[in-house]
Amino acid sequence: MREPARSGCPINMAVEAFGDRWTLLVLRDVMFGNRRRFRELLAGSEERIASNILADRLKRLADAGLLTREDTRPGQRATYSLTEPAIQLVPVLAELGAWGSRHRTTTPRLRVRAELLANEGPKMQAQLMDELREIHLGQPHRRSTRPRVMERLANAHASAPSE
Amino acid sequence: MREPARSGCPINMAVEAFGDRWTLLVLRDVMFGNRRRFRELLAGSEERIASNILADRLKRLADAGLLTREDTRPGQRATYSLTEPAIQLVPVLAELGAWGSRHRTTTPRLRVRAELLANEGPKMQAQLMDELREIHLGQPHRRSTRPRVMERLANAHASAPSE
Repeated sequence: MREPARSGCPINMAVEAFGDRWTLLVLRDVMFGNRRRFRELLAGSEERIASNILADRLKRLADAGLLTREDTRPGQRATYSLTEPAIQLVPVLAELGAWGSRHRTTTPRLRVRAELLANEGPKMQAQLMDELREIHLGQPHRRSTRPRVMERLANAHASAPSE
Repeated sequence: MREPARSGCPINMAVEAFGDRWTLLVLRDVMFGNRRRFRELLAGSEERIASNILADRLKRLADAGLLTREDTRPGQRATYSLTEPAIQLVPVLAELGAWGSRHRTTTPRLRVRAELLANEGPKMQAQLMDELREIHLGQPHRRSTRPRVMERLANAHASAPSE
């Protein structure tokens, strides 16, 4: 935090950590879109985030302990990874997506993942969090016979009407 | 919405509706603090919201269909009520509070309600939503023998260490 917190209320603290609109959307794209590099995040942004805003929000997320940045050798690109506190935001983003699907006019192609996650409930969220721990933190988890949640979300997204 | 939505993603739409930091805090105070009037919201704000920001955010929340404003006779003050879509934000705010309590440094007095809500799970959230429908929408709901959630939250808050 660069400025002192305005109150010690947990909702306020959560909002101070990531509750700026662009910050949350960047987090969404790293989490559900598995976009780990600056260029991917910029090119894939549905909301057409500007590159200076993206750079600022990646820095803020790193400062808030929600992303780590791995700098590889010179000439190679940095990779961003979710931290454990960021992975524990899955239920927050799932509830936001469920609410948006129910109460706002949304695009079918962009809605299917939120609906799948809402319909399947906390079990799927827990499995997704385990998969994210494997992808971002390198924590292997027991192989499940179930299809991977990241694949199911990607397939639902790919096969949704493009309109 | 005054501006066109940046994308039809449900998370984006949710964030466009209320995901400005002050908007969310105003919503929290109407919902959990049962503050229904401008003066109460201004005087009670833990984050010391400025009166012009409060006025703007109340207007935005009304424009987004999350609050209704009842103007009474001249000389009397307007009362704000949550709408059904706003009441359905209880799980979002509960998840935000749970995350903030776990991952940020927070004030005990301001944390107890979030912890209670997180520990008791979805059943207490559903009961709270019914109580909010009674308070804000005038929908009577069957009397429960359980203590009211709004009272339990208020009591927890009142008896928490003031530090």
